[in-house]
Parts: sequence; structure tokens; C-alpha cells
Amino acid sequence: MTIRLNADAGESYGPWSMGRDAELMPHIHLVNLACGFHAADPHTIRRSVALAKQLGVQIGAHPGYADKEGFGRRSIPHTPEEIYNLTLYQLGALDAFCRAADWPLRYVKPHGALYHDMMQRPEVFAALVAAVADFNPELALVLLAVPEREALIAQAKQRGLTLWWEAFADRAYLANGQLAPRGQAGAVHTDPAQMMEQVRRIMQGEPLTTLDGGEVCLQADLICVHGDHSESIALVGQLRQMIEAA
Amino acid sequence: MTIRLNADAGESYGPWSMGRDAELMPHIHLVNLACGFHAADPHTIRRSVALAKQLGVQIGAHPGYADKEGFGRRSIPHTPEEIYNLTLYQLGALDAFCRAADWPLRYVKPHGALYHDMMQRPEVFAALVAAVADFNPELALVLLAVPEREALIAQAKQRGLTLWWEAFADRAYLANGQLAPRGQAGAVHTDPAQMMEQVRRIMQGEPLTTLDGGEVCLQADLICVHGDHSESIALVGQLRQMIEAA
Amino acid sequence: MTIRLNADAGESYGPWSMGRDAELMPHIHLVNLACGFHAADPHTIRRSVALAKQLGVQIGAHPGYADKEGFGRRSIPHTPEEIYNLTLYQLGALDAFCRAADWPLRYVKPHGALYHDMMQRPEVFAALVAAVADFNPELALVLLAVPEREALIAQAKQRGLTLWWEAFADRAYLANGQLAPRGQAGAVHTDPAQMMEQVRRIMQGEPLTTLDGGEVCLQADLICVHGDHSESIALVGQLRQMIEAA
Amino acid sequence: MTIRLNADAGESYGPWSMGRDAELMPHIHLVNLACGFHAADPHTIRRSVALAKQLGVQIGAHPGYADKEGFGRRSIPHTPEEIYNLTLYQLGALDAFCRAADWPLRYVKPHGALYHDMMQRPEVFAALVAAVADFNPELALVLLAVPEREALIAQAKQRGLTLWWEAFADRAYLANGQLAPRGQAGAVHTDPAQMMEQVRRIMQGEPLTTLDGGEVCLQADLICVHGDHSESIALVGQLRQMIEAA
Repeated sequence: MTIRLNADAGESYGPWSMGRDAELMPHIHLVNLACGFHAADPHTIRRSVALAKQLGVQIGAHPGYADKEGFGRRSIPHTPEEIYNLTLYQLGALDAFCRAADWPLRYVKPHGALYHDMMQRPEVFAALVAAVADFNPELALVLLAVPEREALIAQAKQRGLTLWWEAFADRAYLANGQLAPRGQAGAVHTDPAQMMEQVRRIMQGEPLTTLDGGEVCLQADLICVHGDHSESIALVGQLRQMIEAA
Repeated sequence: MTIRLNADAGESYGPWSMGRDAELMPHIHLVNLACGFHAADPHTIRRSVALAKQLGVQIGAHPGYADKEGFGRRSIPHTPEEIYNLTLYQLGALDAFCRAADWPLRYVKPHGALYHDMMQRPEVFAALVAAVADFNPELALVLLAVPEREALIAQAKQRGLTLWWEAFADRAYLANGQLAPRGQAGAVHTDPAQMMEQVRRIMQGEPLTTLDGGEVCLQADLICVHGDHSESIALVGQLRQMIEAA
Repeated sequence: MTIRLNADAGESYGPWSMGRDAELMPHIHLVNLACGFHAADPHTIRRSVALAKQLGVQIGAHPGYADKEGFGRRSIPHTPEEIYNLTLYQLGALDAFCRAADWPLRYVKPHGALYHDMMQRPEVFAALVAAVADFNPELALVLLAVPEREALIAQAKQRGLTLWWEAFADRAYLANGQLAPRGQAGAVHTDPAQMMEQVRRIMQGEPLTTLDGGEVCLQADLICVHGDHSESIALVGQLRQMIEAA
Repeated sequence: MTIRLNADAGESYGPWSMGRDAELMPHIHLVNLACGFHAADPHTIRRSVALAKQLGVQIGAHPGYADKEGFGRRSIPHTPEEIYNLTLYQLGALDAFCRAADWPLRYVKPHGALYHDMMQRPEVFAALVAAVADFNPELALVLLAVPEREALIAQAKQRGLTLWWEAFADRAYLANGQLAPRGQAGAVHTDPAQMMEQVRRIMQGEPLTTLDGGEVCLQADLICVHGDHSESIALVGQLRQMIEAA
């Protein structure tokens, strides 16, 4: 399987518009659609699903904590059972629009703090695996392309789930394969050429130079990109062309 | 098909408890579960679905307007497309828990003002039919047992939907088959014996004496009951016994 | 008192930005700040009050129905007592930020459907008068510059309230002094020159040519303007210059 | 100043009722009223303020995190500035009802996780002190009767604020003056006689036997009590009698 681009979209809410979905979506393979908890509402979801179908983009559910004011970026304490419940609810809600549009839901990528908590706390990962598997084990679960994967893969396999690993075009890495912390200088790439090069290397199995002066080879199924403004959308377009050319 | 009892449940929210679901559910055939818009949250839904399964009660989705403060009893202006969207969202969300529990969703009964708007405005009925049919045409749609049904049945049939008609144990009727308006004296029955008798007559095809001094024969698949306190729950138990005995 | 310009602002919410407040505010005399029910959150309010103070703009509370998804534009059924309560709550919340910033709250202008309901239903107007007067009778209440004012003025006076009447720069009028319904062709002005001329006439007491082919003289304390994009903001700047020059 | 009883109330929301406010309030001196973020709505607040005034109970604002589903018991990450803003908003909202009822707001007691965060994180305490002082420095701020108070008192004094220290009738203490952690056996008293005795000792300056086998003398202005069911309300009534008798 060749590498594919995914991005968040469908994040408008009521009268508030966010993102440039119509410009971004033609360039990506997979779109992570907000499910109404941290962003979106039923009407936004309907429009987003229709747009994705029209452009042939695969849809993933992007469930998050129920926190519009914090946009799902605040880690709100929950029991694993609550994580399971809020995920299941959002999967069902988004999937209903996919069913009605006859354009199937393909995968699940947790959003913001929920994504972060999944990578940090095994019980959150387990709750998410259970929710996705109980809902539909044919959905893939997207997570960060970390180096230590065996335990995660085993856990997912037990429930019949496929994992998709994603790397970032715009984040620097450490030699141990982890993301360089955002606070560190150089942790976030801003030069489009650098981002292109990073994706090219990941795609071709070449090592990345890491922020701590080493090297790391990242194995990733997906590249996460952002499309908030015209520059970033242009870059996503170039990334897509590079991938198609390969 | 014999007549069956349905009641609303699963209406707790966060720290707030409502209803006596565990006492009521053993007596009813069908339970209308709130979907998180006018009442309930993912955790309440999880518990309610588990309870229904354990007691063998068929589950219906009870979607409403997104209005917890008004408990879905205020008619909030929406376009038909918005009605479609908010219904589809709630169906999917509730159904996810039914799928995960392996206890299938059977029907849809709109709640409160949405139910009322469905009976008053043909475009709301059409939006609801479309949402249910697009989601799963094997679900039945519950509505008020009004006298004029042909157009409604035709519309539902076109989308492959079955309609279930419900009458009330505790409401007086008019000779034209409509509910007596709540404001009118005698519109709401409070005497258990009278409610038992009303259900018995509906069940056996006997006419009801109407509030405007006439008679009406009601054809109904379902009887809607309430279980807010111990008296009403006792009555529901008696109704169930009467139905079983018939 | 010379005519003054008012506009809505402070309508961002959580991660969602709305409006160009920093560009618009320098041109207006009075700013209607959302209070957290139909738009805004405590952090947006804090920033908006600080901006208004910095620019010397008078602050008005802009309470609305609790309906972010509908942006307060849907008329949600409420009893007059509920209208009183939701208004009082929002006045207090916004005023707290004005007190803390030492930049006093000056007036109240209901938002969207609440504004419309106030003009249509006397009991809503009465509830709003009561809420404003009970909170602080030195606040003015803004309403549409309709022709028949005596009863409204008398009611407000009884509670010690001043009314401020507002006209629109961008709406056509009928000979009876009412706004031409939005659906009608020509009901909304889009030509800046026409809007400038309409405000000039109102300001100088000259009659407007009405959409139904008559004339009407509007008496207004305030002109309501909008600043959603650069063209409309430029117009507001020109209106302000014209008023200053007069 | 003699010791006084405070309790949470006004925690109903929309159709959901919580607590037995009308039974509890006659026994307490001070009532902490929810402000609409973790519980309550404008209509509940209106009724609660009216009840408190009628019974002569002093009103305190009980602001919390905006988290109805979690009832304000989950610590949601906020910057100190956000804490300031959400507190100010709630103080203003509740105070508006007190002003309209002519029954003044007297103090502020943060709720749930906000209370806990205030005791754990100095920057949260500072934000709360700033919000209360900027709103109205005549309000007292209630906090846990911890042993180390000098720094807190100094910080409050700088802003002109009075602190009120509260102890619990139903919680065991450690010899260092801290509450025994809830998880520990014996951390929560359930025997009314034991609670009566604990309050009597606090009131008369006698030492409490602590859970870790020592003794501690608690200095407290307030005793926090709960009135969820008839037994606890009866106990509150007895505590009030004991205090009155002293």
C-alpha cells in the first residue's frame, strides 16, 4: 500500500465556519470528519460527507472529547468505559450519514486530546479498540507511528482491528522515533521544501535527520497534513503530486 | 399483532437522574430511548440499552430537538433538511449502542415537540420518513393513531417503511379521533380504572366515549404509557397483565 | 443627541472566529456584545470588553436565546418569565466584565429572534423592560424605530428606562414606517451610496422614499450597521465620517 | 463570629431536579448556588434566590467548570486567565438575580474540581482571588480550612478580600490538618453522632482524633454540610440546633 494523506475537516459549527474544506479535500486521500462533540453539527456532517463522496475521499470518524469551547484539545478526565461510550456514540452518528450517502466509513482517528491520551494511556487505547471493534471491526484505527508497536498491534488484532500508522509532514522527530516536543526549537517545520523532503524520505524508506542529531527511519501508512490557509493547501497539493508520481 | 405497551426511558443526564427505568421496563414491550439531544448522554444510553436487552424489551430511538433545558418540548424552528439531519445523527448514535450490545434497534418514535411537529407539518413527517428509511428501512416509525392515515401510509410505503400507530391510555379523545386538547377539562385521565377500561376497549375494538359526547373507535398498534411514579408503574403492570391475559 | 452607529461584535466562540471586530470597532459609537448564549464565551467577552474600552466604544449587552447552533436566530418558545430570566442572566454576566474593566455597560439590545419577538409580542417587550430595569434602570433599551411608540415609551418610563430607537442603513422601508420584508425585491440595500444617502436623510430629518412608492420620515437615535467584510467596514467608516462632519 | 453551616443547592437543571432545597435551606446559614456552568439554569437560579431570600439564608456563588455532564467534578485544563474569566462570568450572572431580588450576594465558594484545583494550584487561587476582587471585594472567598494559611491570607488581603475557612462534618482529618483521602477506610463519616461530635469539637476548639492516630485542632468559620436525603437533612437540622444552643 502506498502512503496516503489525511487531514481534519468538517470542523465548522452552526454559524461558525472553519477550514477550507472544498479547497483541501481534492488533494487528500482520507478525511477525518469531526463528529459533533469537539466540532461539527449534524448539518455540517451532512455537507462534509457529501463533499467527500463527490471528491472520492475516504471518510474517517474523528471523535473527540465533548468540548467545543476547548475544541477537544483539553484532556478531560474520563474512565475507560466513558471513553468507550463517547467514541461509540460518535462513530454511530457519523456512520449514519455515511450509510445514508452510500459512501462507507473507513476508519477512525481520535482527535486532539483523545488522540494524545490514546498514545499515553494504555487503558484509553484499549477502550478505543473495543469501541471501534464493537461497532465495526472492518474499520481501521489510526495512531501515531511510534517505534514500539508490537503490544498495540497484538491488542488490536485480538479484536480483529487493523491499525494505520501516521507520520507528520511538519513535525521534527527524535532519534528514538518520538515526535520532538512542540516546545523545543525546530520541533515544527515551516519550510515547505523541508516538509516535502521529510515526506519523500518517509515514503522511500530513507532515514530522517532528527532534532537530537541522530537518524530515524519511520514506517508510516499515512501522512497527516493541515489545510488551514492557502500556503498549506498548496503544499498538500504538491505532496499529493509527489505521491502520485512515485 | 396484539397491542403493545411503549414508554419513554433513558432520560437521565449526567448527574441528573430521571424516571424509574428499572421498575418500569419489566412491564413494557417497547422502550423509547432518548438519544442525547433532549435527554441522555452516551453513558446513560449504554446503561439503558443493557437494561432493555436484559429484560427483553424492544428498543426504539426517541430523537428530539437539541434542547436539554426545554427537554425537547419546545418547537424549535428547523428546515426539513435540518430535521432529517438531526434525526439521522441520533438514530446512528443510539443504534451504535444497540449494535455493540447485539440487541437490535427496532423502531423510531420522535419525542416531544418533534413528534407534535411531525403530526402537524407534512414536511416534518416527510423528513422523518426519509431519515429513517435512509438509515434503515426495516425500522418502524411510530406516530399518533389519527383517523386519516392513507396519505401517511402511502408516503411511508414509498420508502419501504412500516408505520406503527399509538393511542394513549391517559388521554381523552374527541369524536373525530383526535386527542382532546390538554387545556380542556377531562382531557387527561387520572383514574387508573378509567385508563384500564380505555385500553381494554381499544384492544377489543370497542368504541371510546369521547369528551365531546360522541364515540370513536381507535385502531392502534401501541399504547403509550408513563412510569414516573409508583402509581403509574403499578398501572402499567396491570395493563401488561390485561394484555397478556387477552 | 446626534445619531450614533451601533454594530454587533464579540461573536466568536471557542476556536471559532467571527467578524472583524478590531477593524470595525474604531468606526462605531456603540457595540453590541454577545453574552455567551447565542455566541461568545467568557474569554471572548473579556477580550471584546477590553477592545471596546481601548477604542472608547460604548458597550451594550446583546442577549439572545440560548442557541449557538442557530446563532439566536430561531424563535424558541419561552414564557415571559423565562425571557426575563435569560436576559437577567446575560446582563449580569456581561456586566461583570464591564465592572472588572472599569468601562460601564450602557445599554441593552436584544439579539436576533429575541429582538424580533420583542417587537412582535408585547409580553416579551414587558419581560425585557422588567429585566433591564430590575438589573439597572440607567441602562437604555434599544429597539426598532417603529412609528407607534407611545405605549412602548410609557411602559419603559414606568420602570425608569430610556428607549433608544434604531434605524437600518441597509434596509428599505415601507410608507407605514415598517421595514420592508426581507423577501421583497429591493428590501436590502447593497449599494453603498444608497446606504450613505439613507443615513444622511435620517440624520437630517428628510423623508426616505419607500419600497411601496411612498415616503416616510424616520426618527432614530441609532443606525445599525454591519461589518462582516472589508466593503461593509469601509462603508461604516464613511458613515462615521459623515456623522462627524455633520 | 460563631460557626455557620453552608450547603450546595440550586443544582437542578432544566427538567432535571436535584436536591431537596426547600427542606434543607431552613437549617443552613449560607447557601452555595450553582451558576449555570456545572448545574442550574437561569430559571433555577431565579427560584433558588427567591427561596434563599424568603428563608433569610445568605447567598454565595458556587462557580464551577462548564461541565454539566461531569457536574463540575472533572478538572478541565484551563489557563489562570480562563479561570478568571469563567469565574467572573458566573459571579455576574448569579449576582444579577441577587440584585433583582434585593438580596445581596455575600460570598463565593468554588465548586467541585475548581475548588480542588484552587487548593492545589496557587495560580488557580490567584485567578479566583482576582476575579472575586475585581467583581466585588466585599465578597468573601470560601476555602478549605487548611493549616497553612498565611500566604493565602496575604494574597487575599492584598486585593481586599476576606477568606472564610470551612471544615467538613462528614470527613476524617489527618494529624497534619489535611482531609484524609477519600479512598482510605474511615475517611468519610456516616454515623450522625460522630458528625455531631466532630462539629461540636471544631466549634469549641477541641482537638479531633485523626485517622492516622493523632490529633488536630481545626479553626473554621464554616461547616460544610450536605442535604441529599432525609437523614442528612435531619442531621443538618440537629447541627443547627446545637449551634444555636451554643
